Amino acid sequence: MKTISLSIIGFGAVGQGVASSILTKQNYLKEQGFNLRVVAISDSKGSEVNPEGIDIERALKRKNQEGTIAKSNQKALDIIREVEHEIVVEATPTNIKDGEPGISNMLGAFNSGRHVVTSNKGPLVLRFLELKEAAEDNGVMFRYEATVGGAVPIFNLIHEALSGNTVIGIEGILNGTTNYILTRMAEERMPYEIVMKEAQELGIAETDPSYDVEGIDSACKLVIIANSIFGQNATYRDVNVTGITKITPEALELASKNNYVVKLVCEAGKGHLTVAPRLVPKRHPLSVGGTLNVASILTDLAGRITISGKGAGSVETASSILSDILYIIKNS
Amino acid sequence: MKTISLSIIGFGAVGQGVASSILTKQNYLKEQGFNLRVVAISDSKGSEVNPEGIDIERALKRKNQEGTIAKSNQKALDIIREVEHEIVVEATPTNIKDGEPGISNMLGAFNSGRHVVTSNKGPLVLRFLELKEAAEDNGVMFRYEATVGGAVPIFNLIHEALSGNTVIGIEGILNGTTNYILTRMAEERMPYEIVMKEAQELGIAETDPSYDVEGIDSACKLVIIANSIFGQNATYRDVNVTGITKITPEALELASKNNYVVKLVCEAGKGHLTVAPRLVPKRHPLSVGGTLNVASILTDLAGRITISGKGAGSVETASSILSDILYIIKNS
Repeated sequence: MKTISLSIIGFGAVGQGVASSILTKQNYLKEQGFNLRVVAISDSKGSEVNPEGIDIERALKRKNQEGTIAKSNQKALDIIREVEHEIVVEATPTNIKDGEPGISNMLGAFNSGRHVVTSNKGPLVLRFLELKEAAEDNGVMFRYEATVGGAVPIFNLIHEALSGNTVIGIEGILNGTTNYILTRMAEERMPYEIVMKEAQELGIAETDPSYDVEGIDSACKLVIIANSIFGQNATYRDVNVTGITKITPEALELASKNNYVVKLVCEAGKGHLTVAPRLVPKRHPLSVGGTLNVASILTDLAGRITISGKGAGSVETASSILSDILYIIKNS
Repeated sequence: MKTISLSIIGFGAVGQGVASSILTKQNYLKEQGFNLRVVAISDSKGSEVNPEGIDIERALKRKNQEGTIAKSNQKALDIIREVEHEIVVEATPTNIKDGEPGISNMLGAFNSGRHVVTSNKGPLVLRFLELKEAAEDNGVMFRYEATVGGAVPIFNLIHEALSGNTVIGIEGILNGTTNYILTRMAEERMPYEIVMKEAQELGIAETDPSYDVEGIDSACKLVIIANSIFGQNATYRDVNVTGITKITPEALELASKNNYVVKLVCEAGKGHLTVAPRLVPKRHPLSVGGTLNVASILTDLAGRITISGKGAGSVETASSILSDILYIIKNS
């Protein structure tokens, strides 16, 4: 049995999803010869540290009852540097202004010789290359499947499963909220404002939905794809972005009559990065409805490979994080 | 630069696709630090062996002009056993009667300490477990991405990219010929016989199409999935199979009026293996047209992940073989 210690930095929906997935999959992991031990959990108010392994069930219950995991006020960065463990799961919220506290946490982990698995887009849309090089310089791994597409394993698919291929371009629908709004507008012929209200009531859209509907979230994900697949060092400011706020039910109806749907499509090729509403033929692989995410990858040998699935959700995001953790265990 | 020697056993469409892909991707491979050297090629008439590396361009030209690669009558199995190399690419035709010559070639490779990458379904639908154990006993790898779904990396996706998940069930459309026929019948409202003739003229269907239209090819692929994902030891005789020969344009039209399409769907869960025509909602992820293949994987954490792409073609199949070769190089 190989025992691997990890910390969970950030204990919101994603961090809790990771913890509960490790809990429910304990036997599955042991069957594969792995014992995952969570030695530290940290949220914005404080942290719990236990080198023998935290009782995850209790930790989740306490977070739920008290609103925090805090047993001490030990800082996340000190935990990352000082507590003995192999993998840092960085699950603090995305901040695209300055990338903090994600950037400091990741650099701190790399410089302490720890692998990083993350769902946090901020650091990757601001300083991708620097982070990648810091990981390489320290001989550790940097995995970020959960930053794009939720449960859909876009990076692993391209880097591992399609490794014989050169990627020519990628198109995708990478934001579930806007996909839900456009799908409902088209199917119910309802105006943007009413569908948005519905989405907010269902918890699919945020109270301030601008990050999604103006295309910023999509742009961030596209930047991470471009940097990872095409070796670029783009930031989200390099993307041409148009949101969905000006789309009318009439436009969607006209599209539908001609066998098209309108989707907020992300496109990356060498040298161009675009997020914009686009007409997609109803039978095209990108034409997926509801809150689904999809990526269509154009390659030299395999042709077009399209993958779709749930783009959000704490357990779905935990799926990507757990697969990244297993990759590190198997390859380190 | 890491130099890896391989043999290509079977030099039909797939074998030639592998050779020409290695040729066109030489620089791409060298950039990654790999030098792939083809030291032997064998077809049904004989073989060429060159420990320094065969000139692939010339070999392809000779095969094209003379109909064979044969420079000597050295047998495939002797090459596998006696020529020094690391990876055997087994690309002889699928034979589901007794699995030969594939089974002997693969066992010969494993017992000689060589990894096997294959597109040949026969051995895997007859004696999967025995082959898997022979590989394990000899400490070598057995990779078969190309046996199912052509360019679509189903096994790599599940075993690597979704490794944190337990697979609950799989549904798929794994035969491009029948998918083409059903798509055309539905769209053009033409009877089975006429569409079949068209498909034969286009080279999409064989002169004797029974292997495809009776669902045998789909059943074979389903068996490989079940064995690989659920650890079963099924053979294609364990599958409940119904083909598409009795489907009428009227049935397809009725389905379409109710927003359904009819597809030849493969289904694997623990304990059941079925291939049969099924009503699929038009908006369902399985509803892909033309000759496309698709697999929809239901998992515990990620939910439903669906992947589609080209299910056949020599270059597309070579994509899967090349990705398997790179996996072996990186992990051995």
